[in-house]
Amino acid sequence: MRTNLTLLTDFYEITMANGYFERGIGDKTAYFDLYFRNIPDGGGYAIMAGVEQVTRYLRDLRFTKSDIDFLRSKNCFSERFLRYLENFKFVCDVWAIAEGTPIFPNEPLLIVRGPVIQAQFIETMLLLTINHQSLIATKANRIVRAAQGRAVMEFGSRRAQGYDGAFYGARAAYIGGCAGTSCTVAEKAFGIPAIGTMAHSWVQLFPDEYSAFRAYASLYPDNCTLLADTYNVLKSGVPNAIRTHHDVLLPLGKRLKGIRIDSGDITYLSKRARQMLDAAGLGDCAITASNSLDEYIIRETIMQGARIDAFGVGERLITSRSEPVFGGVYKLAAVENDGEIVPKIKLSENVSKITTPGFKNLFRLFSAKDGSALADVITLHDEKFDSAKPYRIFHPEYTWNKSVLTDFTAVPLLRRLFDKGRCVYRLPTVQEIQRYCKEQMDCLWDEVKRFENPHAYYVDLSKDLWELKQKLLDNYT
Amino acid sequence: MRTNLTLLTDFYEITMANGYFERGIGDKTAYFDLYFRNIPDGGGYAIMAGVEQVTRYLRDLRFTKSDIDFLRSKNCFSERFLRYLENFKFVCDVWAIAEGTPIFPNEPLLIVRGPVIQAQFIETMLLLTINHQSLIATKANRIVRAAQGRAVMEFGSRRAQGYDGAFYGARAAYIGGCAGTSCTVAEKAFGIPAIGTMAHSWVQLFPDEYSAFRAYASLYPDNCTLLADTYNVLKSGVPNAIRTHHDVLLPLGKRLKGIRIDSGDITYLSKRARQMLDAAGLGDCAITASNSLDEYIIRETIMQGARIDAFGVGERLITSRSEPVFGGVYKLAAVENDGEIVPKIKLSENVSKITTPGFKNLFRLFSAKDGSALADVITLHDEKFDSAKPYRIFHPEYTWNKSVLTDFTAVPLLRRLFDKGRCVYRLPTVQEIQRYCKEQMDCLWDEVKRFENPHAYYVDLSKDLWELKQKLLDNYT
Repeated sequence: MRTNLTLLTDFYEITMANGYFERGIGDKTAYFDLYFRNIPDGGGYAIMAGVEQVTRYLRDLRFTKSDIDFLRSKNCFSERFLRYLENFKFVCDVWAIAEGTPIFPNEPLLIVRGPVIQAQFIETMLLLTINHQSLIATKANRIVRAAQGRAVMEFGSRRAQGYDGAFYGARAAYIGGCAGTSCTVAEKAFGIPAIGTMAHSWVQLFPDEYSAFRAYASLYPDNCTLLADTYNVLKSGVPNAIRTHHDVLLPLGKRLKGIRIDSGDITYLSKRARQMLDAAGLGDCAITASNSLDEYIIRETIMQGARIDAFGVGERLITSRSEPVFGGVYKLAAVENDGEIVPKIKLSENVSKITTPGFKNLFRLFSAKDGSALADVITLHDEKFDSAKPYRIFHPEYTWNKSVLTDFTAVPLLRRLFDKGRCVYRLPTVQEIQRYCKEQMDCLWDEVKRFENPHAYYVDLSKDLWELKQKLLDNYT
Repeated sequence: MRTNLTLLTDFYEITMANGYFERGIGDKTAYFDLYFRNIPDGGGYAIMAGVEQVTRYLRDLRFTKSDIDFLRSKNCFSERFLRYLENFKFVCDVWAIAEGTPIFPNEPLLIVRGPVIQAQFIETMLLLTINHQSLIATKANRIVRAAQGRAVMEFGSRRAQGYDGAFYGARAAYIGGCAGTSCTVAEKAFGIPAIGTMAHSWVQLFPDEYSAFRAYASLYPDNCTLLADTYNVLKSGVPNAIRTHHDVLLPLGKRLKGIRIDSGDITYLSKRARQMLDAAGLGDCAITASNSLDEYIIRETIMQGARIDAFGVGERLITSRSEPVFGGVYKLAAVENDGEIVPKIKLSENVSKITTPGFKNLFRLFSAKDGSALADVITLHDEKFDSAKPYRIFHPEYTWNKSVLTDFTAVPLLRRLFDKGRCVYRLPTVQEIQRYCKEQMDCLWDEVKRFENPHAYYVDLSKDLWELKQKLLDNYT
């Protein structure tokens, strides 16, 4: 929806670009990895999202005259550099994990190879896009799993962090498994079902609740869900909804589709409402609950026997309230000197912040027996996998922690998005992505999907890559 | 930056609009209040932000042909209604508190009066805009206060929740008191200083740290801040920065502006780095720290004697990580019947969720003696304040909690944005808003500005408004 995102970048990307240009090293080929270190909410997996927006951004990347004029006004960039930007043409190679794929810490989610002046410049937008959408897709997936097959609708637009927070948040929530959204433009743009019926103000605008329900039912007899908690759910809302069904909908040959409860003790209220609806012959009338829900509250209401058929989840989904940051980073992994790849490492006193050097590839090993995901292996880019042979995986830090895999299929996870700046990726629809996500989630062991203390899925380095990393570490110490 | 936000709305706003239209009550005049109930982070105040974007949205609100075609495809709206949308012209009255004003729970931040079909429709965008920007402005203000006069820079774009999260987040952070941002487009659009120098990858791209520093210093001698922690701050970063100052900058007649430390124990490192810089005659070289900072960590580093001159704050500011939701709501307060204002109340088992009915106004009472803010009073819209007379304020729930104010000035806080759909508000610049925010914050007592257990600032109802509310409550019980 936005016209020009080019200058949505940290200013230092531009000072560095100008610097590389002026020092004559702008065309040096660099390799960058985008990866994350920690899974939000102490979970066992995250969900990749945002690749479509990254692809569109890179495909359309250019500097307008007004961008150039602005940069010139900063008085710190050379005219030669500004002319380079004027004629900017993206020429990098880009690989990324497909949207909807379960992802794990330290594996390359996205790899960029190209002139350092370009590969560096796109850092901010790549991180911003992948961090945001992966955060929300991951949270949505947790919430959807907590609902155990009941529909989850994303209702958070009004509490999102900005317009794109609502819009792309609705997209990411759908990828994670939500059934629909309240955000109308998300249906227009992506075909995600936009749903919703009435606010309390609708009920208040009429002389009484029953008149408000009648008016609504006669307007929308095919899709009539009534908000039952404006005055009193059990004494007023449910009886008026039942009456509306009998007086307005039945004579039209229609049935009441549902009621929504947006406050109070939704577990208790849903059980009592269910009894009342059933007793009135409305066993097919669904009960939707909303009001500050998340995966923990949904799990609890289900454990306590709530009779809720669908959940509307707002602020705690659209902001991922319990952990609103997805900490993706973008790090230099290698440069080329005279055509030779020279791996680069960044040290840190914090072991988890040491980077893994080199131009890489990533494989997911699936059991040939039951299709379950056994482990991911990060390799050097040109390593081949011979699935016929047993493969020994080992923990990259606790190397004694190892095992031998046999009877597996190694599937490469990185897809080519750009070939020397040319987009070569067919963008799947969000509907395809949602289906793919569900299939891939089904391959993960339940132990990895636990909400608390999940099993840490194996993400190991190939022997060659591990040895390369050790060699660089040794050189520095 | 965005072209068309019209359908960025909860779908129920449209089903209700169609409903009001079809029932012939779309033109009924309704009054809505936008307010919030709880201050994020347990603080004593929040900062109003987002009014400019609300104003622009309402000024440009219209339905494109493509919007109408989309709505038609939903097969639930009448052609008459779609024609109404085609010719949509905003005709409401809107009042809002000026951006940068300290705000408190339960007071009307924004009031809309107009045909219910319009006043209801704009709910989602109004909430989304005010919620997001007020959240970030509030968080920024807390962080800036914690820094006690040291500059705070907003560095969070890469971890923001979507593009607008970064862009309007940078705007809100500036309103809250930040000195600058890393987000380049925020300077282009709003004139907020965009700043930044280099990433670790710059240093890694050169054969060694000193070469990287040299290259940077000769390119940007007037504004040279060097990132000192790629290898080792004290053994390598600071000595190389000092050497760069002597070898590159001094011969040009320039001085090293600063170093930045982005990892490790920034308190300890800053003290040692300060000693080293001072010993080298670089007492004027500033030390900037970044790395997962917020108001709590900044306060702690200062308490421990850190020698940090400026803070770069990223993810914890741009997402307001510790409380990423600002819970603004938009509630019906009154309707007109035959020209008479009929106040409306929404009850709830939760006392704090009961709305305050009626068409309102809001005054801030300042001490005539020292200019400090004494209390806010919500009144009926046409109540007048006689500052010459003593005024008795009382707590709206604990009515025995009362006091008499004398010698005060009553300043109305709500400004008219729209008069029957016509924009009548001059939008201040963000620079004006930042200054205004600082002035207004200086009027608040320190007790209200505490990070923990702040004094609850008085927000009381006038006697007339309180009595109106009691009458409506009595009618229902």
